[in-house]
Amino acid sequence: MRLNCDLGESYGAWQMGQDDRVMPLIDMANVACGFHAGDTTVMQKTVALAARHGVDIGAHPSYQDIQGFGRRSIPHSPEEIEALMLYQLGALDGLCRAEGVGLAYVKPHGALNNDMMRDMTTLEAVMTAVRKYDSTLPLMLPVTVHHERHRKLAAYVGIPILLEAFADRAYDDEGQLVSRRLPGAVHHSVEQIVDQAVCFATKGGIHSTSGQWLNLPADSLCVHGDTDGALAAIRRIREALEKSA
Amino acid sequence: MRLNCDLGESYGAWQMGQDDRVMPLIDMANVACGFHAGDTTVMQKTVALAARHGVDIGAHPSYQDIQGFGRRSIPHSPEEIEALMLYQLGALDGLCRAEGVGLAYVKPHGALNNDMMRDMTTLEAVMTAVRKYDSTLPLMLPVTVHHERHRKLAAYVGIPILLEAFADRAYDDEGQLVSRRLPGAVHHSVEQIVDQAVCFATKGGIHSTSGQWLNLPADSLCVHGDTDGALAAIRRIREALEKSA
Amino acid sequence: MRLNCDLGESYGAWQMGQDDRVMPLIDMANVACGFHAGDTTVMQKTVALAARHGVDIGAHPSYQDIQGFGRRSIPHSPEEIEALMLYQLGALDGLCRAEGVGLAYVKPHGALNNDMMRDMTTLEAVMTAVRKYDSTLPLMLPVTVHHERHRKLAAYVGIPILLEAFADRAYDDEGQLVSRRLPGAVHHSVEQIVDQAVCFATKGGIHSTSGQWLNLPADSLCVHGDTDGALAAIRRIREALEKSA
Amino acid sequence: MRLNCDLGESYGAWQMGQDDRVMPLIDMANVACGFHAGDTTVMQKTVALAARHGVDIGAHPSYQDIQGFGRRSIPHSPEEIEALMLYQLGALDGLCRAEGVGLAYVKPHGALNNDMMRDMTTLEAVMTAVRKYDSTLPLMLPVTVHHERHRKLAAYVGIPILLEAFADRAYDDEGQLVSRRLPGAVHHSVEQIVDQAVCFATKGGIHSTSGQWLNLPADSLCVHGDTDGALAAIRRIREALEKSA
Repeated sequence: MRLNCDLGESYGAWQMGQDDRVMPLIDMANVACGFHAGDTTVMQKTVALAARHGVDIGAHPSYQDIQGFGRRSIPHSPEEIEALMLYQLGALDGLCRAEGVGLAYVKPHGALNNDMMRDMTTLEAVMTAVRKYDSTLPLMLPVTVHHERHRKLAAYVGIPILLEAFADRAYDDEGQLVSRRLPGAVHHSVEQIVDQAVCFATKGGIHSTSGQWLNLPADSLCVHGDTDGALAAIRRIREALEKSA
Repeated sequence: MRLNCDLGESYGAWQMGQDDRVMPLIDMANVACGFHAGDTTVMQKTVALAARHGVDIGAHPSYQDIQGFGRRSIPHSPEEIEALMLYQLGALDGLCRAEGVGLAYVKPHGALNNDMMRDMTTLEAVMTAVRKYDSTLPLMLPVTVHHERHRKLAAYVGIPILLEAFADRAYDDEGQLVSRRLPGAVHHSVEQIVDQAVCFATKGGIHSTSGQWLNLPADSLCVHGDTDGALAAIRRIREALEKSA
Repeated sequence: MRLNCDLGESYGAWQMGQDDRVMPLIDMANVACGFHAGDTTVMQKTVALAARHGVDIGAHPSYQDIQGFGRRSIPHSPEEIEALMLYQLGALDGLCRAEGVGLAYVKPHGALNNDMMRDMTTLEAVMTAVRKYDSTLPLMLPVTVHHERHRKLAAYVGIPILLEAFADRAYDDEGQLVSRRLPGAVHHSVEQIVDQAVCFATKGGIHSTSGQWLNLPADSLCVHGDTDGALAAIRRIREALEKSA
Repeated sequence: MRLNCDLGESYGAWQMGQDDRVMPLIDMANVACGFHAGDTTVMQKTVALAARHGVDIGAHPSYQDIQGFGRRSIPHSPEEIEALMLYQLGALDGLCRAEGVGLAYVKPHGALNNDMMRDMTTLEAVMTAVRKYDSTLPLMLPVTVHHERHRKLAAYVGIPILLEAFADRAYDDEGQLVSRRLPGAVHHSVEQIVDQAVCFATKGGIHSTSGQWLNLPADSLCVHGDTDGALAAIRRIREALEKSA
């Protein structure tokens, strides 16, 4: 069970996150590609930092929306989605090449991620872009109870997939993340977070908020590194995962 | 002597040029990479059009300045220039890959081109970016009387170069293009344009406005395709070059 | 019955429309405010041109989306809509002030216009922004069979409204424009366009595509000036309206 | 002697500064206008915060350069500078109007400020824009030993000016700020900062680094509020100024 984290989200004069402190603790860095965050210089530094720590670099492409941080769903045709994906994959790969590394996977960001999980046409466009770029490159998507359907679509398009889960988020009976607007959506106790991480790793699923078992076979856990508490939680998760392995 | 032209310069709802009509007439397409023109969908279409016509695709990277069309010199450090070059080379290459083609060369656009010709530090940063991306990829730069110095720098950095000349522009005794603000800077007679093209192709140089011989060994001529007259001129240049070959 | 037209839609190096030729033919210019088109210099020139011709200047605010030309619906809260409206109204007004003129009305552009006609919360946010800017400034919106409801909301918010209709578009039984994707959506015969303009002006409505009478009391007709044919149609409409007056 | 501070410099998801804590401590807020920082929602909130605290609102216009935070000199003609100034003044004023307040002054940001202090043509364009917007609105510019020349140009153009000084920066014999690249450019001792503030307020000038007296009659001191130390310094400066008054 590997840990992934969104990084390289600074932009120009604006700092976001604490990439220097998170990078040593994770396995996979989802690097912003300039469309929602990460100007070219930020990307260059993020790639260099990941390379130095031997962390896998994943492209974290987005709708083009700096002001909205890629969190707003902007209508696009499948062809437009392919184009913006290919552009961003190539752009990040260009910076990787200069550091002697390569892309390890692709994880769409924000509204593009939400839209592809809601709409199979968008998901197919995303997958097609990845395949056209490099058919050996896995697409990382949130694990849901529909993971078999996603796996089949990926096989049909011709790419591998990676499934990610969240250790700090509650899941409902449909296997969806509980909306952040609802109480109990986010786990704040480190124990609860660590337990959920271990449960994903060892049992291939967790219980929903109502106590129902959810079969959610995740390949990676998404972690956050924006606060001291978050960094401490990552360290605790790593220890617990190693013990349980 | 091959013909190159700036293409893919539309953006969103705004049309520029007539790429469909120019593409069949040229050998090398300098494709805008989204920083001064060419959104991702425009780039996708331009690459597909070039691929269909077997035209070489060159990256046409720029400072990030849509509003100024990349024509304004914006201060950048050498590291920043490397990053913006690598980003744009990769981005265009990503769209090329999806069409089963690759980048053939790199020609910086507008103010970035001017700045690299005025300042060796900028030129070295541009060359270094190309080499880090792909050391077999040639950088195209304007031929001047200092072409030997440029060739040496390229050899030192470790990339090939291509030299381009202009058939429709007058050159002064220093081998510089006569400023557009001065009379006689641009040739308007097709005969004069064709003669200058043939002279570059067969004699490796031309006479300056004062009648002095300039040794300017060009690999490619830059042509324009924005008007019917310009298209007719390209056809006439092609015929004349074939006859003279 | 006054004629309005979208103008000032060039951007940087990209030309759109032929404002110089249209301005003398219209009464009201909807001027892009920099969010979907119209950089600050384009705005300055458009305002000066309108002032020279004594044409009323309307703000044509939009979602911030140069690449999508403001045609893509981007999710915004009512507060965010107020802020982007106030910013654009003020910005255009700043350029007007320097020319000794003022804003005469406000007509939202593209997706923002569509969204406000579909969703009363958005419409109220738009109206509230106009009222906060200047409660004597009319909001121009498409006339529909629900115009009484729109008039009531405007009165409640505290601003005047202007209703616009299209001479060159077919209307369905609901009083909606027939989608451009359907046949017969756009009138191409100048006679038909002129007849519909006169009908709006003299009878306060038109017949729908199925022959049903639609009561659509328009204050202004939206015209286009992008082609020679379009300019000729404007001249014909003006003549016919003058005769019928 | 009034205190001014740059505020409203967040953008989208990116936070900068701690406006809530600084606003109660200052007299004049230089509010970013969307071109280097400050999206429309950030501007709306900043204006509301300033209004609540009775702080004067100054427009802080900039070259259009979000990525470079307005710190890069981008070539503009005087007409272009007028247009971008008028746009930003109006835009901020639009948001002010909705809060029932108005603009109190104008202080150009970053590279635009540097350029106007280096080049009288640029300064005249800036002043002309302010005059065209509102000839009673003062332009704030850094006080230098050339303040009489600036005052004369402002009188010629027809606007008032305000002169600002820095309590935390060393000045050279030319009355210029010592470059940040040199040692001693920035005062880090609160005592030294407070002494310099009081000296500006009571003696109309300070000593240069070499000990030469500089006649620098400032109307306002520029302070920073980004750290706890900076906030403490502002409080200390206020106390000292009140005592010395």
